[in-house]
Amino acid sequence: MLAVTILGNNSAVPAFDRHPTSQVVTLDGNNYLVDCGEGTQIQMINYKIRRSKISHIFISHLHGDHYFGLIGLINSFSLLSRQQDLHVFGPEPLKEIIELQLRVADTSLSFNLYIHAIKGAATLVDDEKITIKCFPTNHRVECYGFSFAEKRQPRRLDPQKAIEHEIPSSFYDRLKNGEDYTRKDGTVVKNESVTEPALPGHRYAFCADTKYDESILPHIEGFDMIYHETTYLDNLRERAELRFHSTTKQAALIAQKAGVKKLLIGHFSSKYDTLEEFEAEAREVFPDTELALEGVAYKI
Amino acid sequence: MLAVTILGNNSAVPAFDRHPTSQVVTLDGNNYLVDCGEGTQIQMINYKIRRSKISHIFISHLHGDHYFGLIGLINSFSLLSRQQDLHVFGPEPLKEIIELQLRVADTSLSFNLYIHAIKGAATLVDDEKITIKCFPTNHRVECYGFSFAEKRQPRRLDPQKAIEHEIPSSFYDRLKNGEDYTRKDGTVVKNESVTEPALPGHRYAFCADTKYDESILPHIEGFDMIYHETTYLDNLRERAELRFHSTTKQAALIAQKAGVKKLLIGHFSSKYDTLEEFEAEAREVFPDTELALEGVAYKI
Repeated sequence: MLAVTILGNNSAVPAFDRHPTSQVVTLDGNNYLVDCGEGTQIQMINYKIRRSKISHIFISHLHGDHYFGLIGLINSFSLLSRQQDLHVFGPEPLKEIIELQLRVADTSLSFNLYIHAIKGAATLVDDEKITIKCFPTNHRVECYGFSFAEKRQPRRLDPQKAIEHEIPSSFYDRLKNGEDYTRKDGTVVKNESVTEPALPGHRYAFCADTKYDESILPHIEGFDMIYHETTYLDNLRERAELRFHSTTKQAALIAQKAGVKKLLIGHFSSKYDTLEEFEAEAREVFPDTELALEGVAYKI
Repeated sequence: MLAVTILGNNSAVPAFDRHPTSQVVTLDGNNYLVDCGEGTQIQMINYKIRRSKISHIFISHLHGDHYFGLIGLINSFSLLSRQQDLHVFGPEPLKEIIELQLRVADTSLSFNLYIHAIKGAATLVDDEKITIKCFPTNHRVECYGFSFAEKRQPRRLDPQKAIEHEIPSSFYDRLKNGEDYTRKDGTVVKNESVTEPALPGHRYAFCADTKYDESILPHIEGFDMIYHETTYLDNLRERAELRFHSTTKQAALIAQKAGVKKLLIGHFSSKYDTLEEFEAEAREVFPDTELALEGVAYKI
């Protein structure tokens, strides 16, 4: 099951007990961390996120509210004697920033740290469970969204039919993978006669910081859920444009045009002490909108 | 009045709702920030520290739990449109670290930031109210303690005696500064006959991270209060030695040998979930010991 847990939903300056951007995408017990604002490791403790399950970290851009917590998390991993590799993906200068801070502290990490520079749209991870890609967004500095596509599930076996066709249970996994069964007498049981097509894998995208820009649509089309920033309510469109951010209705319009099932909104400006209006405005355009609330796991 | 408010009292990894090192030294409405672990700006919000009153920041060393929150605080100052100068003192590579992170984000600060490299024992600030010095401590990397010495107060005027000597009240400030009063007829009223000696200024020292090392004694002798780290209880002396940290009894012995009035202890290892034993052990050697508790202002 694909899910995303929000650790921080505020923009820029922490305020009203809202924290800078960070979210954890979870699939089958693996945690993928997206952005890592200051205090993310403390939010992980607060919300009982298993830090040891984080294998990959994705940093959208190098504004502080999206990555100032990364060096502290890496440092803590080492102090806690982490052993497994850690892969970090982010804009190119990130490597220099992290390595400089490790060097001046004379730190030898307890694990292998790989910092990968991202550039343009690309596939970052592609294993048997998930495909993770990045795509550029339109922000004041180089910035990337990330898409998480669960691999297609195995075909669904109908056990009753398998028994009727006298297929041994030891062959069931191969049936789920789409194979036909050949009896000893040479007769063939076609896979389709005992299985149903697999459900498609779920897809989630984090659209980072961005002004309204339809060029991201091809990267998120038909997704089950997307997160799109809504720094401002819709009466501040001009300010949003000026600062390369989006409003509620702009985010909702992207969700609508991309034909996604559900929209999460966040990255709220510190000028707002309450969030109800964000939800109300976005829902006028795209009804299946929810506020990205800290500590909440949104399941797909 | 000199006071110190603890924002973080834990070492290395945040744990048990204890945060990495940071304290605010306050004198007459000025705030001096000492160390700035990750999340310090959030702790400031929690404990209602007026960020705008911080004119100087002192970073003891470049282990992350003492400075990873600095870039976020600087960034927030700018986002909040700070105007007044900010002076930061710390080991030499700090400047490169901060400037690199500002540069990659294309940040123009709203205020003048001066990052001063410290080296050896030195006077860092000397104005009409306070003298602030740094002194080396004995840690795994270059590390400094900081001493805060309130300037001597004005002499204390006895208004009754001043009236008896027919001294006009417009001359009182000069009396407090030690001047004699000369009447029109040439007779002199000696200052000592209408004033009492000034109370000495209060003194506080933050002794940073350090193993037991008596070389810091000359920098803290006779102080009203010092903070000395106690990463471990006294049964872990060997580990403390190995990691360039101190135990409870070692900190207490430094306080005793320096002849200070009060000892604050902190920088507790994350292996301890409770702190009572720290206080008990230190008090065996130096009774006027208190735990440095987050959110508490210790007044001198």
